Amino acid sequence: MMDGMDPRLARQLAFIQELDRLKGILRQTRVLDGARQENSAEHSWHLAVCGVLLAEHAPPGTDLTRVLRMVLVHDVVEIDAGDAFAYDAAVNVGKEERELLAAERIFGLLPDEQADELRGLWMEFEAGTTPDARFAVALDRFQPLLLNFNGQGGSWRYHAVTHDRVLVRMAPIQEGAPTLWPAVLQLLDEAVARGYLAPAPPPAS
Amino acid sequence: MMDGMDPRLARQLAFIQELDRLKGILRQTRVLDGARQENSAEHSWHLAVCGVLLAEHAPPGTDLTRVLRMVLVHDVVEIDAGDAFAYDAAVNVGKEERELLAAERIFGLLPDEQADELRGLWMEFEAGTTPDARFAVALDRFQPLLLNFNGQGGSWRYHAVTHDRVLVRMAPIQEGAPTLWPAVLQLLDEAVARGYLAPAPPPAS
Repeated sequence: MMDGMDPRLARQLAFIQELDRLKGILRQTRVLDGARQENSAEHSWHLAVCGVLLAEHAPPGTDLTRVLRMVLVHDVVEIDAGDAFAYDAAVNVGKEERELLAAERIFGLLPDEQADELRGLWMEFEAGTTPDARFAVALDRFQPLLLNFNGQGGSWRYHAVTHDRVLVRMAPIQEGAPTLWPAVLQLLDEAVARGYLAPAPPPAS
Repeated sequence: MMDGMDPRLARQLAFIQELDRLKGILRQTRVLDGARQENSAEHSWHLAVCGVLLAEHAPPGTDLTRVLRMVLVHDVVEIDAGDAFAYDAAVNVGKEERELLAAERIFGLLPDEQADELRGLWMEFEAGTTPDARFAVALDRFQPLLLNFNGQGGSWRYHAVTHDRVLVRMAPIQEGAPTLWPAVLQLLDEAVARGYLAPAPPPAS
C-alpha cells in the first residue's frame, strides 16, 4: 500500500482492498424486484443478517460467531474463480481446483495466522460437515430461495429450473436448519401454485 | 408472506425481504476503480470483514460479536431515510428524525424481542459511546478512507473535500481503534502528497 506502514497492517489492508472486487462478482439471483443481478458481496451481507435472525434454527452446538465469520468470507474465492450457477453442470467442471487456487492467493494476502484461520473457515464451509458449516450452508441455500420467491420466480424462471431440482438443491437445509425445512417445502409448493416455479417434468414413459 | 406460515417466522422473513432494498441505496463512495457507487449492503459487508480482520485494534472490552451484529444492521434505516453524504450539511438537516422513524418501521417488522435487540444496537451505534459502538464507528470511517485512497481520491476528489475536513471526520478512529490512528494520519498525508486529496485551504487573512 505505501512505504513505512507496519507490515502486518499493510497485509491486512491489501486483503481488505482485494475484497472490494467481490462487489463486482455477479450471481444469477436477482435483487430489487428483478432490476439487476445480485453481487456476491451484498449476498454475503444478506446471509450474515439471516444468520443473526434465524439463529434459533441452527443445529445444537452451533457457534454463531464462527458462522458469521464463515459466511462473511465464504464467497471470496469467486474473485478469481467466478460464481458458478448451481444448476449449470458445465460451469461447475474444475470449480474445486479453481477455488483452491483462489483461496491460496487471496487468503495468502493476509498475515499467516489470519490466512490460516479464514482459509480454514472457508474449507469447513465447503466440506459442510460441522454444525457451524451446516448452518452456514443452509443459509446459503435459503437466501436465494427467498429472493426467487419474493421475485416471483427470479432465476428459477429465467433458467427454467423445475421443482424437483430446487428440492435437491435445498436438501442441506434439512440438516443445517432442521426447523426451517417445513417452511422450505411450503414455499416451494406455493411457488409452483403461483407459477413462479415449474413443477417436476412427468417421468419418461 | 403466505397463509399458514408460523407467524414468528413470517415476521423474520418479512424483515429479511425488506432488507433486500438496502442493496439499492447508493453511497457517495465508489467501488471497483470508480466504476460505480457503492451500495449500503455491500458497504455493511465490507465493514464486517474489516471488523473481523482489524479486531486487534479495538479498545479493551470490545465484544466483536456484538460489533458484527451492529455493523450488519447499522445502515438499514437508510432504506427509508436514504444515505446522507457526510460532508454535505444541507442533506443532514432532519436526518436524525427521519432515521428514528425508519428504525421504528423497519425493525418493527421483526418479532418484538428481536426488534428491541437490533434497534438497541442501532441506537448504540448512533450514540457511539460504548467500546463496541466506538469500534464500529471507527470501522465506518476507516473503510471509506481506504476506498478513497485506493481509488485515487474517489469521493474526496469528486466533491472537492479538503484534508482538514477529512481529518475531523476521521477523528472517532482515534478513540475507537486507537492503534489504527497513526496509519490514518499517514494515509491522509500520502493522499495529499499524491494529489488524491486537496490540502486544507489557507486561513482567511
